[in-house]
Amino acid sequence: MKVVALAGGTGAARFLRGLVAHLPPAQLTVIGNTGDDAEFWGLHVSPDLDTVCYTLAGIIEERRGWGLRDETFHALEQIGRLGEPTWFSLGDRDLATHVVRTELLRAGATLTEVTATIVRALGVGSRLYPMSDDRVRTRVRTPDGWLGFQEFFAREKAQPAVVEVAYEGAGRARPAPGVAEAIDGAAAVVVCCSNPVTSIGPILAIPGIVEALVSTAAPVVAVSPIIGGAPVSGPAGKLMTARGLPVSALGIAEGYAPWLDVLVIDTRDATLAPELARRGVRAVVAETLMTDAAAEASLARAVLAAAGVA
Amino acid sequence: MKVVALAGGTGAARFLRGLVAHLPPAQLTVIGNTGDDAEFWGLHVSPDLDTVCYTLAGIIEERRGWGLRDETFHALEQIGRLGEPTWFSLGDRDLATHVVRTELLRAGATLTEVTATIVRALGVGSRLYPMSDDRVRTRVRTPDGWLGFQEFFAREKAQPAVVEVAYEGAGRARPAPGVAEAIDGAAAVVVCCSNPVTSIGPILAIPGIVEALVSTAAPVVAVSPIIGGAPVSGPAGKLMTARGLPVSALGIAEGYAPWLDVLVIDTRDATLAPELARRGVRAVVAETLMTDAAAEASLARAVLAAAGVA
Repeated sequence: MKVVALAGGTGAARFLRGLVAHLPPAQLTVIGNTGDDAEFWGLHVSPDLDTVCYTLAGIIEERRGWGLRDETFHALEQIGRLGEPTWFSLGDRDLATHVVRTELLRAGATLTEVTATIVRALGVGSRLYPMSDDRVRTRVRTPDGWLGFQEFFAREKAQPAVVEVAYEGAGRARPAPGVAEAIDGAAAVVVCCSNPVTSIGPILAIPGIVEALVSTAAPVVAVSPIIGGAPVSGPAGKLMTARGLPVSALGIAEGYAPWLDVLVIDTRDATLAPELARRGVRAVVAETLMTDAAAEASLARAVLAAAGVA
Repeated sequence: MKVVALAGGTGAARFLRGLVAHLPPAQLTVIGNTGDDAEFWGLHVSPDLDTVCYTLAGIIEERRGWGLRDETFHALEQIGRLGEPTWFSLGDRDLATHVVRTELLRAGATLTEVTATIVRALGVGSRLYPMSDDRVRTRVRTPDGWLGFQEFFAREKAQPAVVEVAYEGAGRARPAPGVAEAIDGAAAVVVCCSNPVTSIGPILAIPGIVEALVSTAAPVVAVSPIIGGAPVSGPAGKLMTARGLPVSALGIAEGYAPWLDVLVIDTRDATLAPELARRGVRAVVAETLMTDAAAEASLARAVLAAAGVA
């Protein structure tokens, strides 16, 4: 009954927490986006992996949806005093993760190995794989030029118009060890309610992943992050537009067309079900807004049912 | 009226604070020991440079004599949770220094340049040079084998017996840019009341430094860190013994024999003055215990007077 989930950050992490309300954690394998990884002050930061890990470890700062609970920011203040840019907000405990990750990577460990070490140390019972051990960086072209994803998202607060999105390095990257095998051997594959362009897109851009999604015998179920004509949160709308996708559950289905079996859409989008069916995607209607733990678990149950594993 | 000081950590830093109570800070150039530098979790830590810098910046934790005031240790706790050793205690704000130092070094800056950046950012008006931009590591041989200095000092709390002390890399190291020139052009050179073996010893082990001390026209004045038969603090006693030096002001004079002009000794050691004179060292008696800011300033004034620059 192994469930494999493709995941971005905050929204995905909440949904995954809902999943492990139904599944033994060991039956869940998460494939996390590393396209928005970045280096700050020489430290390797993996925001999406950490958000998933911290959420499943029960130590996430809930209100923000990233970083650690009861966090302090003393190192960051001092880094600013020393003249370095501090637009990427990292707390003191969070910094420990990046210091240790960077140390282990520099000593020759792969990101897969480092992530497993952190996950285990924080008591998370599920597997968390980075999509790749190779460097992939999502870049966003604005009218003023290219930005790294975190420059666009964290520094510029996703304000600039988006002309183009690229996944630098993805074409030469290989799926991390275990990723293609996990998809292949899954009872169900879930694509979390993450931004399809900058959270799921980088994962799909790695040669071998789409092939695995096409060939797996498991049902592939996605959860739409769009309700009506707008994303639940974040800049997914303008990024989908830049990719030529309509900002709606139909756009999600279009982006995932080659391999999507089931799309879980919000109750407010129920009328799209016939159109989705015409495109070969079975729609399952659920309440997709995760306002609390009960809503997370309820959505997760609907997704497992849609995949035929609950 | 330029004063150049050779310095280790806490004791030196307090004395230097006393000096800048009398001198414009810009007239003071400090040459700091880097033999006890070490890497923790991939970060380059320069304990003596930082202690001098934090003390002159007025942000040192006074009671401990190292690290920053009002410090928190949240990153360290989390680093421990992630399975890394945490016997070297680094606070959150302090960690910022090491993160930025490591980043700049990895980007190709020299330790001299990085130190100047930190010193300037923290508002210190004096110059602080590392003794060398090359890697020098003090190692201590115990009956159970060799230890890095911080392993001996911080991890083992200086408890093991000491058989031998070595300055790894010193023979191939060059003085940092400006160091020999500063000694050469000084009005007075002061050797701070630091451990002669592991604080001043590594500086002296770099080819060119002793030559500069011998050839400078400036008086060279040392402050004895030994009162009676014991060091004011720390393991200087057993380290001096391992070097074959008697643990007394006479041992200090012996260690600094080739170039020492004046030794400032404690009032309790006044009877050693004739013996020091026989060895060609002029003794100046002063109260060397720096119990408060007034005592620091008073000792500094005595040293400047002994050097003929006050």
